Amino acid sequence: MKKIVVLGAGRSSPYLIDYLLENAAFHGWTVTVGDVSLEQARQRVKGAPEGKAVAFDVNSQSQREQIVRENDIVVSLLPPSMHILIARECLRFGRHMVTASYVSKEIRALESDAKALGITMMNEAGLDPGIDHISAMKIIDEIKSRNGHLISFKSYCGGLISPESDDNPWGYKFTWNPRNVVLAGQGTALYMERGKHRYIPYSRLFKETERVEVKNFGSFEGYANRDSLSYREPYGLEGIETMLRGTLRMPGFCEGWHAFVSLGITDDSYTVDDSENITYRDFIESYLGRYTSGRSTEEALAAFMNIDKDSDIIKRIEWLGLFEDKKINLKKATPAMILQNLLEEKWKLSEEDKDMIVMQHQFEYIEGGVRKRITSSLVVKGEDKNYTAMAKTVGLPSAIIAKLLATGRITRRGVLIPTFPEVYRPVLEELEDYDIIFGEEETEVR
Amino acid sequence: MKKIVVLGAGRSSPYLIDYLLENAAFHGWTVTVGDVSLEQARQRVKGAPEGKAVAFDVNSQSQREQIVRENDIVVSLLPPSMHILIARECLRFGRHMVTASYVSKEIRALESDAKALGITMMNEAGLDPGIDHISAMKIIDEIKSRNGHLISFKSYCGGLISPESDDNPWGYKFTWNPRNVVLAGQGTALYMERGKHRYIPYSRLFKETERVEVKNFGSFEGYANRDSLSYREPYGLEGIETMLRGTLRMPGFCEGWHAFVSLGITDDSYTVDDSENITYRDFIESYLGRYTSGRSTEEALAAFMNIDKDSDIIKRIEWLGLFEDKKINLKKATPAMILQNLLEEKWKLSEEDKDMIVMQHQFEYIEGGVRKRITSSLVVKGEDKNYTAMAKTVGLPSAIIAKLLATGRITRRGVLIPTFPEVYRPVLEELEDYDIIFGEEETEVR
Repeated sequence: MKKIVVLGAGRSSPYLIDYLLENAAFHGWTVTVGDVSLEQARQRVKGAPEGKAVAFDVNSQSQREQIVRENDIVVSLLPPSMHILIARECLRFGRHMVTASYVSKEIRALESDAKALGITMMNEAGLDPGIDHISAMKIIDEIKSRNGHLISFKSYCGGLISPESDDNPWGYKFTWNPRNVVLAGQGTALYMERGKHRYIPYSRLFKETERVEVKNFGSFEGYANRDSLSYREPYGLEGIETMLRGTLRMPGFCEGWHAFVSLGITDDSYTVDDSENITYRDFIESYLGRYTSGRSTEEALAAFMNIDKDSDIIKRIEWLGLFEDKKINLKKATPAMILQNLLEEKWKLSEEDKDMIVMQHQFEYIEGGVRKRITSSLVVKGEDKNYTAMAKTVGLPSAIIAKLLATGRITRRGVLIPTFPEVYRPVLEELEDYDIIFGEEETEVR
Repeated sequence: MKKIVVLGAGRSSPYLIDYLLENAAFHGWTVTVGDVSLEQARQRVKGAPEGKAVAFDVNSQSQREQIVRENDIVVSLLPPSMHILIARECLRFGRHMVTASYVSKEIRALESDAKALGITMMNEAGLDPGIDHISAMKIIDEIKSRNGHLISFKSYCGGLISPESDDNPWGYKFTWNPRNVVLAGQGTALYMERGKHRYIPYSRLFKETERVEVKNFGSFEGYANRDSLSYREPYGLEGIETMLRGTLRMPGFCEGWHAFVSLGITDDSYTVDDSENITYRDFIESYLGRYTSGRSTEEALAAFMNIDKDSDIIKRIEWLGLFEDKKINLKKATPAMILQNLLEEKWKLSEEDKDMIVMQHQFEYIEGGVRKRITSSLVVKGEDKNYTAMAKTVGLPSAIIAKLLATGRITRRGVLIPTFPEVYRPVLEELEDYDIIFGEEETEVR
């Protein structure tokens, strides 16, 4: 009788916990959900007979020790920096662990210990990272098995809002950590194109976007992720000529966001003078310097961006309230904090809102002298504000992997990510039962 | 018989040491020069009878202790982060100290101890900071003494190359720390304009410049310093409507540098892949992404900047060799390191080159109901590669202040900067003997 514990009962947990509880009776599991809020944990367990809700404080060494010791498999949905605390206990007590987060340096350093102790530490078992690895590796392995030679791999993913709930000019609401959205892309993006390294600094990341078409769902915009090349080696694509990983947004979002980057209001490194008492209009004006002379703020921004005053960009920014004579009312706030605070109000999911996940992989390869293209696309829509497509696609891969570990179907040990057939096959198969299904198109390139 | 020690015999030391040695016989001083290179210290002392050259390693606690104990006044020209090590010894042994560097937090924390012990720790006694404070405060105090009300203060300074030695299209050579020049302005600039805060992010700092006219010397370009407002309080200008501090460059420099910032090649936060083996052309191309398609690198850069292929900006960049098929030959280099390495070769002062310091203060104030303007400008030219205007203007204020301390003419104690009459009057007076003379123009503003 296996014992599984889920640590953290936040936004990405509902499908994951439901899945484990649904499977618990059949497999004879107990499923414990620990959260800093006992009430939150209880709401997720919903009184299921195989479930148990507990209060759990990750900062308590004794609680960490106890909860890991008492269970066989630990799924951590805690903030990424906390995983290492749990991982150390998992090593001590010989427990398998699953997270949906990127492998940190600290976690990677546990590789040889985990292997020696026969423990599986599966990371990046969410959506992006997670389903991207799982779905891409299936196709990469297929192409390789047919002696195809991959020359290009582009992969995009976006957590968006479903068209029926899209009632704002940005085509965007928060389904994920707002701070990460506001700070997204800071630094320099790196990818490969036709054998050459390409760098895009933050100042033009949202300007130099690519158009991505998804059949039956229309056009999206993709901006490059920070480092597109880090998965060359895990994917076995060392010599590939073109490799790009990007984030998708609805058309128009990026040009609007580019205005914020150009203004400088996504900066989180200094506080704005007197941020409590100034208005949103003051705030925007203070970045428009010479352009404000003899102009309204709207006109100054249009002049600064070299666009028409009646353009969609200005309308989007106006819709957010950035031209309002309303006090910001935030003490010692950075520009990014001011922007985030406003966006959290404007881009809030309402109860009935449905979000939407879009993922697309584009492969180009040569097989038998013929250049071919495979496009593999996924669109998943959420049910409501809690049962989001984001929670579904982030949570289910971790849940399925926890099951595969509990049932002994994953035998590889060490610090892993889900790029190998023993994991990606059963996960992809089971995701189909939840309507997480990629559509593939294969064409010849002329 | 006073003993003065100068720690560090580098670029900014020649005039300073000459000045102290020239004054030594009359005042009965000994002047010790300590440098990590004994040979370098000897070259500066030139066998003067009152002088002594010693090898000095700032990392040795015993050497720090000994050299401070043996002297009465310590002038530190060491790297800024080292001053605190010397300052602690000065406190221990009750010695006065002079530096040309910004007051660090650590030094500021010594204020009450220094005061209690009757020690003067004079900082910012160079050019910028230094002569800027000295010359501006003289005029600010004069205006105030006439019951004038200051409404605007703009102050610019640049370490440039003298027209007769200006033989490159950038109008620039290094007379100062190259790394600081390459990284200059990163972050966000803050200043005040007509009562409003103004922020300029780095991505447009070199685009949004101001034109500065210096009588008999022509036009310069000024870009805003990081924080123009930090001297409002030390200058007693708390309520001022406009306050800007900027850095001067020759016309055209900033638009060229803006190309580097836009490309992203002044970034020091990551290393460029395979930086050892790629060429300068590869390097530039890797930042030009989509613009390279079907174009030469020069054409791609022109298209990216939205300028003509034959424009001066492209010519300046070409002159630097950034389009050459020549290996960079630097291991694990950041973009900024690659750029700096190239610039150090191209912007090197030759033996006979004369540098030039330009400083200008622009004051606007209301006196008796009339709006008036004072422009105060300084131009100093160097003699050669060693006796630079930079060394003269950085070194002489510290040297004069060391003399004023040795002769008991400065009585104020604590952690100070030279903003008060007891210091700025005699320093300004003596600087005139060295042809460091501000020209003032006063006009009414209609």
